[in-house]
Amino acid sequence: MAKKITNRDQDYSQWYLDVVKEAKLADHSPVRGSMVIRPNGFALWENMKQVLDRMFKETGHENAYFPLFIPKSFLSKEAQHVEGFAKECAVVTHSRLKSVDGGVEVDPESRLEEELIVRPTSETIIWDSYRNWIQSYRDLPILINQWANVVRWEMRTRLFLRTMEFLWQEGHTAHATKEEAVEEAVRMLEVYRVFAEEYMAMPVKTGVKSESERFAGAIDTYCIEALMQDGKALQAGTSHFLGQNFAKAFDVQFQDVDGEHKYVWATSWGVSTRLVGGLIMTHSDDQGLVLPPRIAPVQVVIVPIFRNDEEKSTVFEYAGSIMDELEQTGASIKFDDRENHKPGWKFAQHEAEGVPVRIAVGPRDVQKNNLEIARRDTREKEIVSREGIAEQIPALLETIQDSLFEAAKNRMESRTQSVDTYDEFKQAIKGGGFIYAHWDGSAETEAKIKEETKATIRCIPLDEGEPGVCMVTGEPSARRVLFAQAY
Amino acid sequence: MAKKITNRDQDYSQWYLDVVKEAKLADHSPVRGSMVIRPNGFALWENMKQVLDRMFKETGHENAYFPLFIPKSFLSKEAQHVEGFAKECAVVTHSRLKSVDGGVEVDPESRLEEELIVRPTSETIIWDSYRNWIQSYRDLPILINQWANVVRWEMRTRLFLRTMEFLWQEGHTAHATKEEAVEEAVRMLEVYRVFAEEYMAMPVKTGVKSESERFAGAIDTYCIEALMQDGKALQAGTSHFLGQNFAKAFDVQFQDVDGEHKYVWATSWGVSTRLVGGLIMTHSDDQGLVLPPRIAPVQVVIVPIFRNDEEKSTVFEYAGSIMDELEQTGASIKFDDRENHKPGWKFAQHEAEGVPVRIAVGPRDVQKNNLEIARRDTREKEIVSREGIAEQIPALLETIQDSLFEAAKNRMESRTQSVDTYDEFKQAIKGGGFIYAHWDGSAETEAKIKEETKATIRCIPLDEGEPGVCMVTGEPSARRVLFAQAY
Repeated sequence: MAKKITNRDQDYSQWYLDVVKEAKLADHSPVRGSMVIRPNGFALWENMKQVLDRMFKETGHENAYFPLFIPKSFLSKEAQHVEGFAKECAVVTHSRLKSVDGGVEVDPESRLEEELIVRPTSETIIWDSYRNWIQSYRDLPILINQWANVVRWEMRTRLFLRTMEFLWQEGHTAHATKEEAVEEAVRMLEVYRVFAEEYMAMPVKTGVKSESERFAGAIDTYCIEALMQDGKALQAGTSHFLGQNFAKAFDVQFQDVDGEHKYVWATSWGVSTRLVGGLIMTHSDDQGLVLPPRIAPVQVVIVPIFRNDEEKSTVFEYAGSIMDELEQTGASIKFDDRENHKPGWKFAQHEAEGVPVRIAVGPRDVQKNNLEIARRDTREKEIVSREGIAEQIPALLETIQDSLFEAAKNRMESRTQSVDTYDEFKQAIKGGGFIYAHWDGSAETEAKIKEETKATIRCIPLDEGEPGVCMVTGEPSARRVLFAQAY
Repeated sequence: MAKKITNRDQDYSQWYLDVVKEAKLADHSPVRGSMVIRPNGFALWENMKQVLDRMFKETGHENAYFPLFIPKSFLSKEAQHVEGFAKECAVVTHSRLKSVDGGVEVDPESRLEEELIVRPTSETIIWDSYRNWIQSYRDLPILINQWANVVRWEMRTRLFLRTMEFLWQEGHTAHATKEEAVEEAVRMLEVYRVFAEEYMAMPVKTGVKSESERFAGAIDTYCIEALMQDGKALQAGTSHFLGQNFAKAFDVQFQDVDGEHKYVWATSWGVSTRLVGGLIMTHSDDQGLVLPPRIAPVQVVIVPIFRNDEEKSTVFEYAGSIMDELEQTGASIKFDDRENHKPGWKFAQHEAEGVPVRIAVGPRDVQKNNLEIARRDTREKEIVSREGIAEQIPALLETIQDSLFEAAKNRMESRTQSVDTYDEFKQAIKGGGFIYAHWDGSAETEAKIKEETKATIRCIPLDEGEPGVCMVTGEPSARRVLFAQAY
């Protein structure tokens, strides 16, 4: 079979597209910038959703659903927020088509009085509801999450990483005090970190954004940042402390225990189908997708090998008993009994699709009470005895999970360095990776660095750090911040 | 406490709105015709989704996600389909806003070359993908479902029952033969019937739509029809056999086993958040929402009763042990330990929210090792011994589930009648309910009946039936069909 996936070191962008295609994760859609998420890709997102949804509920959140359309006037209410989003929105202006010469045209008479914006994010429409729901401190906190599609009119798109429409969750919480709101924003950042590292096996750096990288309308944007195999950073999740900005814009006040009327404090936080892109670029190799077992829709695939009906019947019976035993361990198993394809084709396809463990059984395995186990991550094969697989396979899945995380963590750490001078920085940034360097805290210096090196401040770490002097201006710096070129 | 819910027999529409409000299911949104689904309402929908999603997967379907926006030209490709939907769509014409005098305006320079339609349903965009996915009989069947939001520009809207944006699932399948496709459409109708009756405890009539009530682009539309408490019918789910209409419109052919190129056969099927409206109107009463236990987010609520800290500590300990024991049965339990509200207020609130079983425990119950159980459906209270509740409560939940279904089924059957003459029909339709009557099969007669009585043909039953003569024209009729006034 001809190799369908470009090597990473040959053309990284093409490699990414090839992996997405061969793993059947997504297609480009006829609407520029939109994508079709195919069953394999959607099953990944469903698994991510399920874990995150449980984590959100365990931290006290409920799901709700707010409208897709936002009246244009709402976007004028929070000035900073407008500036950040106003430039890239899908605008609904009409409500009817009419038939014309066998085709359809927009009916000009259906023009709306006020245009509607397809939500790029839902702070405005949600805080409009919160005004009706909040009267007293007894109504607080409100801890709501929404799973939804949102639209941002992106010019340069890439499957999963940046698309015009994407799927995400957006948490929107309302609190009586500033402390509670900050605590919530930090709590959800930690939920994201745990999810990224323990489920996606994707190590991340955490911190807070500089003012120019902050969410439009936020006081502080906390983030998790991952490092892709090409040395570029990927912002993988953000959690915003919004202060009282939206409460003031939408006049959301509550009567506190002391009888005073006060503005409510807010957070919002989100991760999106972009995570699927991050997952792909963290683990995959030149044979295709590599999935951490805790997120993999299929953890183990069993491929039968036989040449005639007699062998088929023996092998199927044997494979069936293995499958029954493994299913009782709670693992997600698939028996690939397709007749139209040969074992070699199936092996390559399961590799491309990233199934963590492949079991192959043929007539000789039945005789010897053996089976062949292949790990997707290391591509190692081993013949093992059938006895004890109910313990061995779950243990192997855990080993793969841990080893993917360790490998990714080592890659990230080996590509993370500290530099002192701007010359060193310019040299280092060419090789990719994370760079810690001192910065004077000014937007001007930040802009200069971005312009000259394409590197941005990914985050300011939350720990104390050592003071120093800015690598560009020599002005005092409270601590080193994290730079990288980013997606 | 003043009664917040209008009686059904006083003003049915207001009763419905009051139930939605007091059960905190949904709010009107500032965008006319859209709604905000509040956490209580969304938890109901989540439970419905979870059951349906399992049923879809058990019948071999996978989930995927297709774009929100459909190019306008796609809607011109299937002529019948256009006619059905073209009149009520949200149309995106621009892609940018700009800041003007502290507000925002649509940037006229961002006008799109081709307008985009916010999906009213996804046949066109999905069959455009299927063309790329299907080459051979080996690629068939394709059994895909999508959970999504859709938009239809409705003029007269009502929370859950008819909203501009709603949430739904849409299955879209592709098959090699007509027989397989018809089988699939009928299979999914049966999935809907089982879901409606066994989970929602909502009895339904099944059948096929007349030509004028059929989905635009379908050969046959199968449906489940429920009867609401005001005697009006509600179309609760539809499953369409689409023939080769979309395959021809989007040129989707496959090479069959015999080497011939053939057009693919299609189905689509969907249920929506409208089901939440159906659920409300099937079971609820003048005290508020009534929920069947299998769909209820909270099945049992425990309300503690105490006057001082000492009592509180005794009662909480006792309630906690009950809660632990019940949680092990798999029931969904909530302990209402809110301090800001009195037991009487809590009782009324849980009634309004439809919690199937309420347990109240006070100091005397602790002494006597008792507890008070109240059923939401019958509003009966009973003092029972604490011993044996781990068996009693799950059994009670099943009893409530069955008894809600029986009650609804009896209501439906008692309001279902057969008539022979048009005069009888006109008289009967005033009282609401389902009416079986003979019809000559013509669209003219159907339209006349609709105009004169507001009754429509809800479905043509699938069984054989007895021939007769049309109640209006006296022409021959193959069998009686089911009429009702409908939502």
